Amino acid sequence: MVGSCGSCDNCSHNLENYCPKYILTYGGKYHDGTITYGGYSDFMVTEEGFVIRIPDNIPLDGAAPLLCAGITTYSPLRHYGLDKPGMHVGVVGLGGLGHVAVKFAKALGARVTVISTSPDKKDEAIKSLKADAFLVSREQDQMKAAMGTMDGIIDTVSAVHPLLPLIGLLKCDGKLVMVGLPEKPFELPITPLVLGRKIIAGSCIGGIKETQEMIDFAAEHNITSDIEVIPIDYLNTAMERLLKADVRYRFVIDIANTLKIA
Amino acid sequence: MVGSCGSCDNCSHNLENYCPKYILTYGGKYHDGTITYGGYSDFMVTEEGFVIRIPDNIPLDGAAPLLCAGITTYSPLRHYGLDKPGMHVGVVGLGGLGHVAVKFAKALGARVTVISTSPDKKDEAIKSLKADAFLVSREQDQMKAAMGTMDGIIDTVSAVHPLLPLIGLLKCDGKLVMVGLPEKPFELPITPLVLGRKIIAGSCIGGIKETQEMIDFAAEHNITSDIEVIPIDYLNTAMERLLKADVRYRFVIDIANTLKIA
Repeated sequence: MVGSCGSCDNCSHNLENYCPKYILTYGGKYHDGTITYGGYSDFMVTEEGFVIRIPDNIPLDGAAPLLCAGITTYSPLRHYGLDKPGMHVGVVGLGGLGHVAVKFAKALGARVTVISTSPDKKDEAIKSLKADAFLVSREQDQMKAAMGTMDGIIDTVSAVHPLLPLIGLLKCDGKLVMVGLPEKPFELPITPLVLGRKIIAGSCIGGIKETQEMIDFAAEHNITSDIEVIPIDYLNTAMERLLKADVRYRFVIDIANTLKIA
Repeated sequence: MVGSCGSCDNCSHNLENYCPKYILTYGGKYHDGTITYGGYSDFMVTEEGFVIRIPDNIPLDGAAPLLCAGITTYSPLRHYGLDKPGMHVGVVGLGGLGHVAVKFAKALGARVTVISTSPDKKDEAIKSLKADAFLVSREQDQMKAAMGTMDGIIDTVSAVHPLLPLIGLLKCDGKLVMVGLPEKPFELPITPLVLGRKIIAGSCIGGIKETQEMIDFAAEHNITSDIEVIPIDYLNTAMERLLKADVRYRFVIDIANTLKIA
């Protein structure tokens, strides 16, 4: 995000990310009609109010994806009150968003359970990312045993998937927070929401103030995204690998060393 | 509701209505296996903790439906913070639940807009129930003009209906609260929830403490349900009329004067 109207209700509450006129970092249109090119550039000009300071002790490459995946998961953990010791937080999907969600939720003191369709991600979740537990969403016994135990779930999966088992994992007043952008609508069973006073919510990146707070928190807790640094001429191959989810977990382009100005 | 376990986390937070073992007033099973008969009786015995005191200044017949429709709408207005002057609250559906929702939301100081498929309910909504505005949900111009203006919506309609236009009416952080119990799942578009940080929530009656608070509030603000009092031998006809939504808005059986003990 590189701009917003600056005067609406959301802008005046540090929620530029929910401004109806916010400007995306790439593929967006600036106030004067110029197209934004975001990170695929060796430099860019933007208003100082939209610049985030990266603390010195955090590597630039590992920090870069936090400006999307980091704030996307940090903001709902904070906003929906899942940021306290004693909270039990589920994370659905272990990809670019999910692996960072686990790191932030753990650093905020929550007990974290990863929920995935892939049993082979268990080691990664528990050993590398320090999640407390792992549920295979297709294993009904595991899911049943965990019913009614979670204060909130960060659901990072964009593909259509059943919400009913996830709603079942929530306690009364539990929150299922969707952070992906699926193309198709989901099937929503209303009755379990009503009978358990549960919530399905959405969350989209964060405001600039909270993004600075997130990156400062990440620096303090040594949180970075797991990345693979690539040269710019590897981009097309990287896009193909992205479609196959063949990256743990984000590609970062080394613009400074590999982008040649024509 | 005439009983609950008394020891679970929800019971200990005055949320007996979300106790997994709560006992419904009729058609439920008491701890000893006895079937509960609720209001279709000339007397009943229950634990004193599940008795609500009806204040002297509120008529018993007009108060009776509040123990369901009243608390079902009062509780989410309170819980989801829609109970303050300055709030703009939508009410979807003008029936047993909806007409009481309008009365409570008005008494709590909110600006209230009724949303209905029936244009002929406008007079009733504005003149009798004192709603501030009325939207015909099929009139796209009206709906479009009201987009992004509501802090919350109480949706009382159980039949499957589109959620997207209702989500569109909400401000950022707005809450669409479902209080009906539809048999079929709804279609849920995720993207507008994410891009606007909006919430779809459920709510089911209320705990005993809050139910007492609701009835005291109703007595203080002269809120009753609009009712039609019937003798018990009219019951089958009343059921037929209920299916046609042919009642404004609740039938109340005069048990004391018409139930003959066999």
